[in-house]
Amino acid sequence: MNVLIVGSTALDSIKTPGAENPRLLGGSASHASVAASFFGPVQMVGVVGGDFPARYLQLYARHGIDLAGLQRAPGKTFHWSGEYEENMNNRRTLRTELGVFEKFTPELPRAYQDTPFVLLANIAPGLQHHVLDQMRRPRFVAADTMDLWLKVALPDLLRLLKRLDLFVLNDSEAQQLTGEENMASAFRKMHRLGPKYVIIKKGSHGSVLSGPRGLFLCPAYPLSKVVDPTGAGDSFVGALMGCLAAARGPVDKHIRRAMTYGSVVASFCCEGFGLKRTTRVSRRQIEDRLRELEALTRF
Amino acid sequence: MNVLIVGSTALDSIKTPGAENPRLLGGSASHASVAASFFGPVQMVGVVGGDFPARYLQLYARHGIDLAGLQRAPGKTFHWSGEYEENMNNRRTLRTELGVFEKFTPELPRAYQDTPFVLLANIAPGLQHHVLDQMRRPRFVAADTMDLWLKVALPDLLRLLKRLDLFVLNDSEAQQLTGEENMASAFRKMHRLGPKYVIIKKGSHGSVLSGPRGLFLCPAYPLSKVVDPTGAGDSFVGALMGCLAAARGPVDKHIRRAMTYGSVVASFCCEGFGLKRTTRVSRRQIEDRLRELEALTRF
Repeated sequence: MNVLIVGSTALDSIKTPGAENPRLLGGSASHASVAASFFGPVQMVGVVGGDFPARYLQLYARHGIDLAGLQRAPGKTFHWSGEYEENMNNRRTLRTELGVFEKFTPELPRAYQDTPFVLLANIAPGLQHHVLDQMRRPRFVAADTMDLWLKVALPDLLRLLKRLDLFVLNDSEAQQLTGEENMASAFRKMHRLGPKYVIIKKGSHGSVLSGPRGLFLCPAYPLSKVVDPTGAGDSFVGALMGCLAAARGPVDKHIRRAMTYGSVVASFCCEGFGLKRTTRVSRRQIEDRLRELEALTRF
Repeated sequence: MNVLIVGSTALDSIKTPGAENPRLLGGSASHASVAASFFGPVQMVGVVGGDFPARYLQLYARHGIDLAGLQRAPGKTFHWSGEYEENMNNRRTLRTELGVFEKFTPELPRAYQDTPFVLLANIAPGLQHHVLDQMRRPRFVAADTMDLWLKVALPDLLRLLKRLDLFVLNDSEAQQLTGEENMASAFRKMHRLGPKYVIIKKGSHGSVLSGPRGLFLCPAYPLSKVVDPTGAGDSFVGALMGCLAAARGPVDKHIRRAMTYGSVVASFCCEGFGLKRTTRVSRRQIEDRLRELEALTRF
């Protein structure tokens, strides 16, 4: 089945102690859509400006990503610049230029309005609502978020939670939202806010799902070298949703394996700048690493 | 088979925002020995003063811990006082009174010198050496450490590493010792220093083994409430060694499961002050939680 993904489509300039990488393909929708594309058809909704390189449109197309929902607006593409410290754990934003993203209103092509799986990748909760308002009766809706929205758009986000099946956020955001350091307590509070499934991402420590069948501790693939973690969380949730949409039968049956695929694709994402590594990965390599991860956790 | 455990035997006064717990049974050898005792016979080497409560000696005995190596010296038992913050993650030492520990020289009863499994729980590396010097040909030697020894006794510790089969330390200590933030790089450097097996403990994020068969990602049991994490690391390595000593066949075959038992016993340790919860746990409850942990990680 199809998965619809809405989020940011951006150019990322990423500086590390070793290298400068100007105007890489980035944004939550780009990372999530490429990750989902390994598993099945993806419909992507976003906006780019006149400066968006044609080669990036070709890249989306090569991954079989349907671009009927990608708006081309006059102006500049959303541009984020950031710098990583030596240890690759701390990143600081150098500049954010919203460009065409500032006036972005996602409009869904009619054919997208019946898509069963919907991923609201990280963008303003108001836009996430606007997408859901246009959908008929999606089977499964997931949303990711970021700390910024907890600060500047909390009421919108709280209202969004009631409309979700799955909510994904990282550990510090979960703490910020619930005021709970203990993960079990944080999960309890978030379920009360709406979603049946909640996933807390913990970076290199993996992720944890809380759902009707209890908890699942999902491992992260241990990397020898992290080149650029930008987009790893988007890749995780993109692959997870792509995998769920491709599977038959109830979500509950597949969500653990889908998360583990998410972990694997996120690990590839960290091995290159922007989408450089992810776009070169084969389905076969994903399967190999999944089996490896399985072996690393068996006791 | 027997496991010999040497370390500190102490009284811990632990303050939390909710409670004060004076003179609990504590110390690395106490926690590790009780944890190991669930799996087989334990020989404990340590020192206590004249003020050491008889009920704690009875507690050791109830757990079948052989006390022929526990010295009784005139003076006061090693006493540690610490305070936890609201979130239970940050702890600060209020007072350390070494007492009889200051002049402690571990002397092994003759019967202990042939014990096949040796756990050098956290004490000064000089004392850990002194124990090994008295052993004949132990089959498997493990040591734990702490940040303090990396600062004040690094040459002793480096010399010790060459004598170990297994070295256990936490993530910040591994970083401190190797200068590597990346876990894979840290493992590589530590193997070069001697031990065939290295385990990095990551608290509530679990632990990771590096050994001849590669990595093993060992989960932590997710707790709804952490009462007191003091001794969790000692319990982990104690149960691990107890379990290895009880198993038949090569270490490599059992070490993953032994670590998972370590995780389980450590989780019980965190659910009560000092050894209060651990000493009330049954083998049955340990098996139940192990199965639960297995289910939480299956995908």
